[in-house]
Amino acid sequence: MKRPVITLLSDFGIADHYVAAMKGVILGICPQAELVDISHEIPAFSIPEAAYTLAQAWQCFPKGTVHLAVVDPGVGSSRRAIVGEVDGHRFVAPDNGLLSMIPGFRSARIRQITASRYFRQPVSNTFHGRDIFAPVAAHIAKGLPLARTGNLIGDPVIADFAEPTRLGLARWLGTVLKVDRFGNVVTNFGWEEFRGIAASPFTLKIGRRTVSRFCSTYDGAPDGQLFAIAGSAGFVEISMNQQAAAKLIEIGAGSKVELLFRSVAK
Amino acid sequence: MKRPVITLLSDFGIADHYVAAMKGVILGICPQAELVDISHEIPAFSIPEAAYTLAQAWQCFPKGTVHLAVVDPGVGSSRRAIVGEVDGHRFVAPDNGLLSMIPGFRSARIRQITASRYFRQPVSNTFHGRDIFAPVAAHIAKGLPLARTGNLIGDPVIADFAEPTRLGLARWLGTVLKVDRFGNVVTNFGWEEFRGIAASPFTLKIGRRTVSRFCSTYDGAPDGQLFAIAGSAGFVEISMNQQAAAKLIEIGAGSKVELLFRSVAK
Amino acid sequence: MKRPVITLLSDFGIADHYVAAMKGVILGICPQAELVDISHEIPAFSIPEAAYTLAQAWQCFPKGTVHLAVVDPGVGSSRRAIVGEVDGHRFVAPDNGLLSMIPGFRSARIRQITASRYFRQPVSNTFHGRDIFAPVAAHIAKGLPLARTGNLIGDPVIADFAEPTRLGLARWLGTVLKVDRFGNVVTNFGWEEFRGIAASPFTLKIGRRTVSRFCSTYDGAPDGQLFAIAGSAGFVEISMNQQAAAKLIEIGAGSKVELLFRSVAK
Repeated sequence: MKRPVITLLSDFGIADHYVAAMKGVILGICPQAELVDISHEIPAFSIPEAAYTLAQAWQCFPKGTVHLAVVDPGVGSSRRAIVGEVDGHRFVAPDNGLLSMIPGFRSARIRQITASRYFRQPVSNTFHGRDIFAPVAAHIAKGLPLARTGNLIGDPVIADFAEPTRLGLARWLGTVLKVDRFGNVVTNFGWEEFRGIAASPFTLKIGRRTVSRFCSTYDGAPDGQLFAIAGSAGFVEISMNQQAAAKLIEIGAGSKVELLFRSVAK
Repeated sequence: MKRPVITLLSDFGIADHYVAAMKGVILGICPQAELVDISHEIPAFSIPEAAYTLAQAWQCFPKGTVHLAVVDPGVGSSRRAIVGEVDGHRFVAPDNGLLSMIPGFRSARIRQITASRYFRQPVSNTFHGRDIFAPVAAHIAKGLPLARTGNLIGDPVIADFAEPTRLGLARWLGTVLKVDRFGNVVTNFGWEEFRGIAASPFTLKIGRRTVSRFCSTYDGAPDGQLFAIAGSAGFVEISMNQQAAAKLIEIGAGSKVELLFRSVAK
Repeated sequence: MKRPVITLLSDFGIADHYVAAMKGVILGICPQAELVDISHEIPAFSIPEAAYTLAQAWQCFPKGTVHLAVVDPGVGSSRRAIVGEVDGHRFVAPDNGLLSMIPGFRSARIRQITASRYFRQPVSNTFHGRDIFAPVAAHIAKGLPLARTGNLIGDPVIADFAEPTRLGLARWLGTVLKVDRFGNVVTNFGWEEFRGIAASPFTLKIGRRTVSRFCSTYDGAPDGQLFAIAGSAGFVEISMNQQAAAKLIEIGAGSKVELLFRSVAK
């Protein structure tokens, strides 16, 4: 028999007992589950970085996997808890935009989790990861149909960082999704849509800096100069040869980036 | 068949090979075990923080779980290795107080592990996690009755931080169990017993600081002012709004805290 | 049925999605695999430390284990991917010396992985861990004979740090394998071969420092003085009582160490 896979993503860190508490709850409900950590080192409350990390990882897992994602600054407030299915994968998360970079999320059937009989009782105000998300994910892995978790909703939160916003004919507002450990700044300008920057004059405005150079490899610019590059994750990145671009720019996940194409058809 | 769960807790960190060595030994003995890390980021030799972390996590796991905890400054000395059962959970650890925050530990039947036939041979002087604790935990997960590991002992170590010590009619000596990653200082003053601080004038003396204010939420005091709060783990915590209390107080796990109620019935 | 164990070792860190991507790919191919992390905190591109860490961990695992090791500065270049079997354990890694501290590796039958039908398609230029190493390891765990992965090669890379080089009658050139978290400097001078330093006058030259003292315990020298010691991993280490030797010496994994015996038979 195939064991159900449950992935876990959070900003809980690995030093404390929080991740283990969720895993213990899951194994109490679904002992046959295979638990795989995606990351627990998401910066505290960073929904953009969590959404990006999940979007990079989920498709590597087999269909049927349940993805449990808990970056939840609104815990204890009225934010909803949701489940949804995309391409055979099931997702369990707070309704705060965390799932909105999953392609297909916008057209997926999303439900608000309300079936408290699947919760761990009593439900705390501070740790829904353990009390709501983990047990619901475990029940789903064990076979609970999504329809039993709650009703469909028509308005799940789509994060503003899910894709760039058009500000004008040749002006876009994007968001930093992640700073990687080499200091490269991953934006939400998808390479497929914005590959024009390789051919046309452009300016990226980020923090107090502007970037107008495109390079196709990391060593394509002089040291100390910022440039844009097509990153391996499919997004435009801002980089520096041998140095941490993010340190110079002084920004992090969630920061805004403006893109202007300078020579629009005149 | 339900797979036996073994949790692991240590101060080994995750960069080195130590945790993997323990897991390899376990899987060689009990291949069906499900291994779950509680934490390996306990500060080196910090028995209070290990005891607190284990006490927070264990009850989330299903009955039958074997909890393997190795924070072991006395490795190679004459400190004993022990096993015990509380509420259907089995615990394997050095006898140094690490288990003494598990409710029920004091009344549990505790055995000294002496059955060397279950050890990995040769037993090193420096790594009993791999050579004694991991193989014994694996054998227990596989079905070995605790009685086969060694004889009952009447005097397992109860750590002085297991609960506050009464110094006088209205004076108690407590211990810092953990500084969380927000800098909140978790004491061993259990909220149930010491909720009086919400109603009565009190002073907490910690490091060179005193704290006399109680707040019910983290934003209940002006910035930069220390206050006591009922933490989500069930203990009195010392906190500061938006700042790391522990940094101001300059203490860590194991530090002492004195509590005085100032208006005892006169 | 015994579940196949796959260990994972890399320099990917645990914050990003890379490790999860490899695990997802593995579970898609071999759902019954038991995945165990050895370490993902190898310093970026540090083949010596990766080789050392793997060499310390692998023998604790049961025979039949597949060890997947990806520290791969040459990804995308023409470096080969290899598999081999030593003592019933299977190893999958880039051919860059990462396996060369496994005893028996030199005499093992090593194959170059070329059977692209077992790869994840399309194969990227930047992430062979996900696209080549993980799926091949999963197929092997599932039962694929090594002979099906590619042809035998006669010249796998043996790292220069695999053992010290003799420079003269009493002069050896060694390599630092790892700096542990206490700052102890682990060299590749195996204790069995070089235990002469406990008895004969010697000099270790490392960075701008020389070390001529041998101690049998960590507290055997005055504070602030470097000494050599027989480390628990079976190698000569350079240490300081209560201080980080590596900080004083200013070196890291991969640095060279010269050993001279000063009183060769005259």
